[in-house]
Amino acid sequence: MIAHILSTGDEVLLGDIVDTNSAFLCKALKDMGVEVQKIMAVGDDVELIASIIGDISLKADICLITGGLGPTRDDVTALACSKASGHRLELNQDALVSMKSYFKKRGFVLTKDNEKQAMLPAGSRMLVNHNGTAPGFYIKINQCRFFFMPGVPSEMKIMFEKEIKQVLMNEFNLSDDILIERLTVFGLPESRVGALLKGFKTKFPEMRLGFRADFPVIEVKIILTDSDKDNKKARSDIETAKQWAIGQLENKVVSIQGLSIAQEIGRLLTKEKKTLAIAESCTGGLISNMVTDVAGSSDYFLFSGITYSNDAKMNILNVQKKTIIDFGAVHEQTALEMAQGARLRAGADFAISTTGIAGPGGGTEEKPVGMVCIGLSGPTVSMAKTYWFSFGDRVRNKKMFAMMALELLRRHLVSVTKTA
Amino acid sequence: MIAHILSTGDEVLLGDIVDTNSAFLCKALKDMGVEVQKIMAVGDDVELIASIIGDISLKADICLITGGLGPTRDDVTALACSKASGHRLELNQDALVSMKSYFKKRGFVLTKDNEKQAMLPAGSRMLVNHNGTAPGFYIKINQCRFFFMPGVPSEMKIMFEKEIKQVLMNEFNLSDDILIERLTVFGLPESRVGALLKGFKTKFPEMRLGFRADFPVIEVKIILTDSDKDNKKARSDIETAKQWAIGQLENKVVSIQGLSIAQEIGRLLTKEKKTLAIAESCTGGLISNMVTDVAGSSDYFLFSGITYSNDAKMNILNVQKKTIIDFGAVHEQTALEMAQGARLRAGADFAISTTGIAGPGGGTEEKPVGMVCIGLSGPTVSMAKTYWFSFGDRVRNKKMFAMMALELLRRHLVSVTKTA
Repeated sequence: MIAHILSTGDEVLLGDIVDTNSAFLCKALKDMGVEVQKIMAVGDDVELIASIIGDISLKADICLITGGLGPTRDDVTALACSKASGHRLELNQDALVSMKSYFKKRGFVLTKDNEKQAMLPAGSRMLVNHNGTAPGFYIKINQCRFFFMPGVPSEMKIMFEKEIKQVLMNEFNLSDDILIERLTVFGLPESRVGALLKGFKTKFPEMRLGFRADFPVIEVKIILTDSDKDNKKARSDIETAKQWAIGQLENKVVSIQGLSIAQEIGRLLTKEKKTLAIAESCTGGLISNMVTDVAGSSDYFLFSGITYSNDAKMNILNVQKKTIIDFGAVHEQTALEMAQGARLRAGADFAISTTGIAGPGGGTEEKPVGMVCIGLSGPTVSMAKTYWFSFGDRVRNKKMFAMMALELLRRHLVSVTKTA
Repeated sequence: MIAHILSTGDEVLLGDIVDTNSAFLCKALKDMGVEVQKIMAVGDDVELIASIIGDISLKADICLITGGLGPTRDDVTALACSKASGHRLELNQDALVSMKSYFKKRGFVLTKDNEKQAMLPAGSRMLVNHNGTAPGFYIKINQCRFFFMPGVPSEMKIMFEKEIKQVLMNEFNLSDDILIERLTVFGLPESRVGALLKGFKTKFPEMRLGFRADFPVIEVKIILTDSDKDNKKARSDIETAKQWAIGQLENKVVSIQGLSIAQEIGRLLTKEKKTLAIAESCTGGLISNMVTDVAGSSDYFLFSGITYSNDAKMNILNVQKKTIIDFGAVHEQTALEMAQGARLRAGADFAISTTGIAGPGGGTEEKPVGMVCIGLSGPTVSMAKTYWFSFGDRVRNKKMFAMMALELLRRHLVSVTKTA
C-alpha cells in the first residue's frame, strides 16, 4: 500500500515553521503498519496543489493532506481538490451544521466569511474538527483516498485520531493493535545507543526500534505492531526484547517504563514515603524545575535553595565560611555542606546539591568551564563527587549537571530500596 | 527561479525525526531572495530518489538534497544521482584528500568502507564537509543545479554556509545582504500578533515579517533583503517599520532587541547595578532557571528560595505563621511576604515571588488551577497581584506564571529607570 503526505501553506516553505505534522502522521501510519513513501510540502498555490493531487491520485492509495482549510483567501486546498477531481465546490450541509454547533458552544455567530469553510468538493464526506472551525473532508480520486485536514497541529491530531483512523482501518483492513515498551537512557550518545542495539533487528525481526533524543536523554521505544494486545505471547515476546535491550545498554537505563528521571525519582520517593530538598548553585534552579514539572511533586519535594552568592550559601545553607575561604565555592566540601544544609533546613530525608562552572565565563585552569561538584546527603549517605563535561554551552552544561545530580540520587535510592 | 528541496532517509518517513533541515534551508534561501516551491522527503530507495531527481532536473533551477551520503548500504543518494544523470560513480580525488585530512586531524586512518563516500558522480564538484566525514557534491543535470549534502544538521548547515551559498550567489547573481530587527512579544496570542501587523505588507512592501512562537513568547522579525548593509536609508527604513510595529503591538513588546525577558531584565539590572532575589512556590525553580540561563547572571542574581512546603516558606522566607493560617499558601499577602523575605535574606535590591496552583491537582472552586499570586518587593515598591490562566497543563501554567512574574519586574524596572 502506498501512502503519501502533503502539507500546504507558505509558512513551511518560507522556513518560518518546521513541519511537525508530517512526522506525526508518518508515525501514526507506521503504528498501523503503513510506511509512508513520500512527503511533500508546497505553498498556497492552487494550480500547483491541484497538479500534485492529480499526480498522487494515480500513484498512491492513501494521501493525508494538511493545511489550507481556513477562511482566508490564502486557503485554497479545497479549491485545488475541486480542480484536480473535477467535482465542483458546494455547501456541505454536514459541515455547516458542525461549524454552527462549534460556534454556538462558544457563544459566537457564524459569519458569511466562515461559511466558505463549509464549501467542500461534491461527493466528499465531511470530517469533524473537534478543536477548531474548519471541517476536514474525505474523498476518493482515481485510485487514491484523500483525507484533508487543518494545518493547526492540535486540530489535525484529533481529527486524525477520531475521524480518520477508523476509516483507514475499515477501508484497508489495518489494525492499530500495537505494543510499545519505553526505556529512558542517560549517559550514552545516540550513536552508541544505536550501536549497542545493532543486533535487535536480527534477534527480534517482528519488532522495531524507535529513538527519540532529547539532550542528554535518549528514549528507546520497542514496538510490536499488528499484535493482539491481549495476546500473552506478544506480551512475553516484547518483554524478552526489552530485557535484552536493557542488558545491552551498559547500566544506563534510568527508567524501564519510559519515565523521565525526575518522574522516576518521584516514584521511588513516593514508594518509600521520603522527602527531598535541593541546593543549587551552577544549575540555577533547573533541577528544582525538573522535579516540580512532575505532577504531585509537592508530596515529596520540600525546599530548594538556589544560592548563587557565597553569602547565600553561608546564610541559607550554613556552608562554613572557612570552607569557602579554604576551598572556594566550587569544591566537593562546599557541595557536601550545601546538601547537608539544605537537608537540615528543610527537614528532608534526602538532599542533592550542585556547584560548578556553567560558563561561558568564570573558568580557570584549575576549575574549567564544565566542572561540577555534586553533593548527596541522606540518612546513610554523605558524599560529594566531581565531574567534568565539555559541551561548551551554558544551557547544555546546566542540563548535564542537573541530570548527573538526579542520576546520583536515583542510583542511591535504588540501592537503598534494594537493601532495605 | 524555481527551487526544490529533497530530504532522503528512512528516519523522516518513519516519523522518528522531524525534518528540521528543510526549514533551515527554506529560511536560508529566503534570506537570499529565493522562495522554495516544493519540499519532498523520501526514504532510502534508490529507484525512487533517481526518478525524483530526474523529474526535478526538468522543473527546477536549484535543488538542495540532504541525507544518504554516509558509508552504509542504506546511503544511496550518490548512486541515485548517478542513475538519474547517467554519470557513473568514480573515485573523486578531491573528496579523498578532504576525507584523509579530516581523519588525520582526529588521529584515525581511512578504511575501505569510508572510501565509498568519496565515490561521486563523474563531472560533479566535491563540497567539503567541515563537521564530518561524508563529502557533499554539486552537479548540473539538465536545467537544474543540484547540491548534495549530509543529513546530519550540524554537517549540513556548515556545508551550506561555507560551500554552497557563494556558488548560489555567483551562479544566480543573488545577494545575502540582509537587515533583521527582532521584537520579543509577550501577552498576545500568535493570531492576534498577526492581526495587529496585518497592514505591514502594504505599508512596507520592500520588507517582510517572520514569526517564531515559543510559548508563551512570540518573536517578530522584520527582514529587509537585498539591501546594502551600510546603506543609511535601509537602516532608517527598517527602523521606521520597527517603530510602526512596536506601536501596533499594544505595549506587549518586552524587548526591542529580540532579547528573552530574562536577558532584558539582566540588561536593566546590570545597567542600574542592582541585584535580584527570587521566591518561588508554584513555579518550582523555573524563574530561577530562566534567569540563570543568561550568561553573566551571577553579577546580579543572588539567591532564590524554592519553598514548596509551608515550613520552608516560614523558616527560610519568614512568612508569618498567621498569614498562612489566615489566608493560606496561595494568597497575595503570602506572595508579598515571600518577596520581602527573599529580598531581606539575600540583601538584594529587588525580589519577585510566585505562589499558586499549577495543577493538575490541588485546585478548589475558590483557588482554581491556573491561579497565581505574584509578589514584587524593591526600594520603592511592595505589591502583590493575582492572575488566572487556563492552559490546563502544569508545564504551560508554570511557564505562564514565570513569564508574568518576570514581566511585572521588567515593567517596574523600566518605570524606575525612566523616573530616575
